[in-house]
Amino acid sequence: MAARRAYLDHNASAPLLEEARAAMLDALSVAANPSSVHSEGRAARRMLEEARASVAALVNGKPQHVVFTSGATEAAATLLSPHWTMGRAPLAFSRVYVSAADHPCVLKGGRFSPEAVVEIRVAPNGLVDLDDLKARLDAHDTSAGLALVAIHAVNNETGVIQPVEEIGRIAHASGAVVVLDAVQAAGRIPVDISKGYADYLILSSHKIGGPKGVGAIVSAADLMMPVPLIVGGGQEKGHRAGTENLAAIVGFGAAARCALAGLDRIENVATMRDRIEELVVAHVPDAVFFGRAAERVANTSFFSIPGMKAETVQIAFDLAGVALSSGSACSSGRVGPSHVLQAMGFGEDASALRVSIGPSTGEEEIGLFADALAGIARRRKGKAEAA
Amino acid sequence: MAARRAYLDHNASAPLLEEARAAMLDALSVAANPSSVHSEGRAARRMLEEARASVAALVNGKPQHVVFTSGATEAAATLLSPHWTMGRAPLAFSRVYVSAADHPCVLKGGRFSPEAVVEIRVAPNGLVDLDDLKARLDAHDTSAGLALVAIHAVNNETGVIQPVEEIGRIAHASGAVVVLDAVQAAGRIPVDISKGYADYLILSSHKIGGPKGVGAIVSAADLMMPVPLIVGGGQEKGHRAGTENLAAIVGFGAAARCALAGLDRIENVATMRDRIEELVVAHVPDAVFFGRAAERVANTSFFSIPGMKAETVQIAFDLAGVALSSGSACSSGRVGPSHVLQAMGFGEDASALRVSIGPSTGEEEIGLFADALAGIARRRKGKAEAA
Repeated sequence: MAARRAYLDHNASAPLLEEARAAMLDALSVAANPSSVHSEGRAARRMLEEARASVAALVNGKPQHVVFTSGATEAAATLLSPHWTMGRAPLAFSRVYVSAADHPCVLKGGRFSPEAVVEIRVAPNGLVDLDDLKARLDAHDTSAGLALVAIHAVNNETGVIQPVEEIGRIAHASGAVVVLDAVQAAGRIPVDISKGYADYLILSSHKIGGPKGVGAIVSAADLMMPVPLIVGGGQEKGHRAGTENLAAIVGFGAAARCALAGLDRIENVATMRDRIEELVVAHVPDAVFFGRAAERVANTSFFSIPGMKAETVQIAFDLAGVALSSGSACSSGRVGPSHVLQAMGFGEDASALRVSIGPSTGEEEIGLFADALAGIARRRKGKAEAA
Repeated sequence: MAARRAYLDHNASAPLLEEARAAMLDALSVAANPSSVHSEGRAARRMLEEARASVAALVNGKPQHVVFTSGATEAAATLLSPHWTMGRAPLAFSRVYVSAADHPCVLKGGRFSPEAVVEIRVAPNGLVDLDDLKARLDAHDTSAGLALVAIHAVNNETGVIQPVEEIGRIAHASGAVVVLDAVQAAGRIPVDISKGYADYLILSSHKIGGPKGVGAIVSAADLMMPVPLIVGGGQEKGHRAGTENLAAIVGFGAAARCALAGLDRIENVATMRDRIEELVVAHVPDAVFFGRAAERVANTSFFSIPGMKAETVQIAFDLAGVALSSGSACSSGRVGPSHVLQAMGFGEDASALRVSIGPSTGEEEIGLFADALAGIARRRKGKAEAA
């Protein structure tokens, strides 16, 4: 690895915030199980509940409506279930309506069978097609079960912000329940569960500067809950068994406090992202930006360099000391075309480069990115002239 | 909290080992997602795979047969499933056979319906009734599906070591598949998956001095695997989706290396535990020890003080600076009778005190325990004389 490197892949995993690290170190010194009744256990419990309050505050929710999970994927697998309860009565969902540009953990429908997953179209600008959502929900057969709508608030590849209030209105008018994947929205735009557009939120710690391995479900109320995915002990009020991951939860709590406070300074992140896009235009005048026609979060840019495979450019950036991602969520180390671009209508082989930054991104990273990009553009020009 | 305290509740959660803490600090400095293909991602991947090799080595398994989970409870929920695959072919289990003294995450049967969970009897000495196991498996109707046997190797309350080789022989002779909950066995007795008595092991990091929030499934082979509990990205070869909890996994790896090395010195732990039991006998000559008639792991003692509720004694110990547990796994902060003692035939209200220690337990802890116990015994004697 080069001595100086720029890490511009915050949407894959953000660097751990100093505040989160310090909180985790405190928690790692607590041996006890938060369910133990002795003093040590009660001290662990207090740390856990403080973190719960911080995560709730990030989305203007109530602490008692936060269920900690091992991450957003587990949260999605928990919520995307045909089997729920309302109090003690069973409740059945027959279909889950997801957007074609959702994260794989939503797109695959969790515990629904593949036939029960309905994909909503996405427009070339990256926005969910509201007419298609409405038409699909109008056609929903409520005699077979309820409709669950599960959609991302912010796309992890393009950074496009979905019209969550309209989605909520359309879904609720049809009697559907709304799960909003707010993983890439939290800390980047205000997310407010008290406004009523979503019934359940999915959050991830490591996308906002907390540690990997922890996420949360935040619900608007807790009368209706999915049948637990993981059973055993009575942790998390019976909604999620297993000894609580104290250090990670406490780190998540600290990151949530920082993310909430950082919303006031999010324009600084947008300024840095805009500078990156200006550099791209300067070196690659024919670069194609995806999602720029819609409203985007401050930290993400998604673009392609015509004539060059995103994968190749990504490797060139890496060799030049810049870590960024090539479009697809390559969860198993594979790099391939982007299902998000495909959903937006850019063809089956479409891929692009994702730059995603954070509050810690500064001049040094911009400089490294500029140098790497200049080298790539030079080689591209040389090749074009030689051809 | 008192200034000097003795933490004697390692079976609920062991203190984090210095080696695990150091490894975690390294991993927390890695921002990248282990699935990312850039240098940072590949560095994260290497740390992950090193931990995988260490966890495999602890149970003499193969690294490629380790699937990391968010803990033992999730591992149990994954394995205890009626739906499996053999290669690409579906495979169905119709019953899961558990012991009545299993941990709640096994006892509740994971993804099996309650009717499909068959409880095997436990003898008063804490050992699984092998005749009952054999009779139940003989009566298993294979036309409805396969039989899954899920049993603990070491009981978390009594420390009793189950006859895992005999259990494996009986189960395999009946064509059953064996899941062994080795959570309380790992690092205390040798666990060796290559010996063939178990097809799948469940491990937990925080019981062996690693962090909370991570566990593993170790399989003897990987042809037959349960349908994943958590779907989304392709992590863990498709067996468990979600960004890997890098810091916790790396801490688990370090703890596994220590646990394996520490087996050679486990007699020191037994010596400390025996001293604790001698103190109990000296101050409470009529104390009743549970599980002592069977072979036990070195670190656990489970006893009751006649005429005193375990809950009351536990609180008295806590006030005197000693953290120990009162029998039951009180996963939601409740204290109640022990289902393990109930399974052993000691009645519905039976409860006891559990002292569980580790390699770090030393003279200071023994001294604090002795002082606290002396005070409790004095008050007990005073009350008896006043009555």
